[in-house]
Amino acid sequence: MAEVIDKTALFEFLCRMGDNTLILGHRVSEWCGHAPVLEEDIALANTALDLIGQTQLWLGYAAQVEGKGRSADDLAFLRDAWDFRNVLMVELPNGDFGQTLMRQFLFDAWQVIMLRHLQGSSDQQVADIAEKASKEVTYHLERSAGTVIGLGDGTKESHARMQAALERLWPYVGEMFDSDATDAAMVQAGVAPDPGALWAEYDALVGAKLSEATLTIPEGDFHHKGGRDGRMHTEHLGHILCTMQWLQRAYPGAKW
Amino acid sequence: MAEVIDKTALFEFLCRMGDNTLILGHRVSEWCGHAPVLEEDIALANTALDLIGQTQLWLGYAAQVEGKGRSADDLAFLRDAWDFRNVLMVELPNGDFGQTLMRQFLFDAWQVIMLRHLQGSSDQQVADIAEKASKEVTYHLERSAGTVIGLGDGTKESHARMQAALERLWPYVGEMFDSDATDAAMVQAGVAPDPGALWAEYDALVGAKLSEATLTIPEGDFHHKGGRDGRMHTEHLGHILCTMQWLQRAYPGAKW
Repeated sequence: MAEVIDKTALFEFLCRMGDNTLILGHRVSEWCGHAPVLEEDIALANTALDLIGQTQLWLGYAAQVEGKGRSADDLAFLRDAWDFRNVLMVELPNGDFGQTLMRQFLFDAWQVIMLRHLQGSSDQQVADIAEKASKEVTYHLERSAGTVIGLGDGTKESHARMQAALERLWPYVGEMFDSDATDAAMVQAGVAPDPGALWAEYDALVGAKLSEATLTIPEGDFHHKGGRDGRMHTEHLGHILCTMQWLQRAYPGAKW
Repeated sequence: MAEVIDKTALFEFLCRMGDNTLILGHRVSEWCGHAPVLEEDIALANTALDLIGQTQLWLGYAAQVEGKGRSADDLAFLRDAWDFRNVLMVELPNGDFGQTLMRQFLFDAWQVIMLRHLQGSSDQQVADIAEKASKEVTYHLERSAGTVIGLGDGTKESHARMQAALERLWPYVGEMFDSDATDAAMVQAGVAPDPGALWAEYDALVGAKLSEATLTIPEGDFHHKGGRDGRMHTEHLGHILCTMQWLQRAYPGAKW
């Protein structure tokens, strides 16, 4: 384990973790008051709150590591699209309820595995955040997997919708397992695992659940990328930021 | 004609004129790249540009009258919802193409009549803006009336959609003819006509075109209000401002 951690790489890694939960949390919050049944509405709102809570931890630590006087709020509300490091999947529009839950499942499964590894991080603060978040995320996965199975192995209509959702989202899964210099630095410092090394575990977990859901994983190994390294986000991120940041942009420093 | 014009009332009047064209211009611009045929796409984009051009004149003069160092851009991009003075009709979502054109027709007819009267304004700058805008607006009305007639007296489907559009929008027409203390001050100063006094002319013009379109004006004289006096806008205005103002909020003073 390296004694000196590359601060720039650590900041980048923490932004990737925090931006994933921030943008997905915002997306999920869009369901508030619109879900098909009250139970689901409340469950989605709770999931969104958990994700935003994790964001505070990840981005709060990112801001601390950066050491330029920025806060988690500054990172969330005052960066522009090109500085965000979330994977593209989480910024996609919600689509229907099935698509939202399929995305949640595909992300939850990754997050459960990633956080389990991060609990053994050489960075105590990363390990602590991972331990706290794991409890919530384990429950998220239980729910989203259950819903994916229920709808996939449900009616003809619900099956067709879940299969369509899987086909739409699958090409965005691969980005979660991409590796670059930042990841190499994290591996070297013992902070985080190589994302690619999580694939086998993910493939087994997700494959089993999707099989139970009678859904078929699309063939081909093309995947979209550009989000986690900030090279190219979808057009949707700008619209999210516009809504999410307007208040702090219009009323800088406003508190409640 | 009064020698001393109430500056506060004149500012309010000019904001009403400019906010109508600003918000409608923004709404119409949302069609850019999405209209059913290229010809209509370009026509709508041109209409939006005309309306934004008129906005520069109205809000530019408003800023000058206010005399607090604000510009037309400041008024457009740095006010919040409660300071906007547009009628509610122009902030409604576009709906389908028929609804957009019906709203355009209902607004164009009002604007043609209003601008004709304003060309005789005691305020030379108001008269000049009205004269310039009249040329564009006369053409807008020719187009929107033609489309309303073509679609209203068209297929069963297009007729049904235009009748539905009229029923949706008619309760927002009345607000354009409301009068209050600001209008009274404008009448007294010879700046602008009493909005209520324009109703007979509007009723005759719009009634004839809608009759030709085989459309039926809904019964009842209830109308929504609160926009032109800023007491209560619809929820849609906030979303428009969020999109419209984000750039200037995020990058204060940015120019291109």
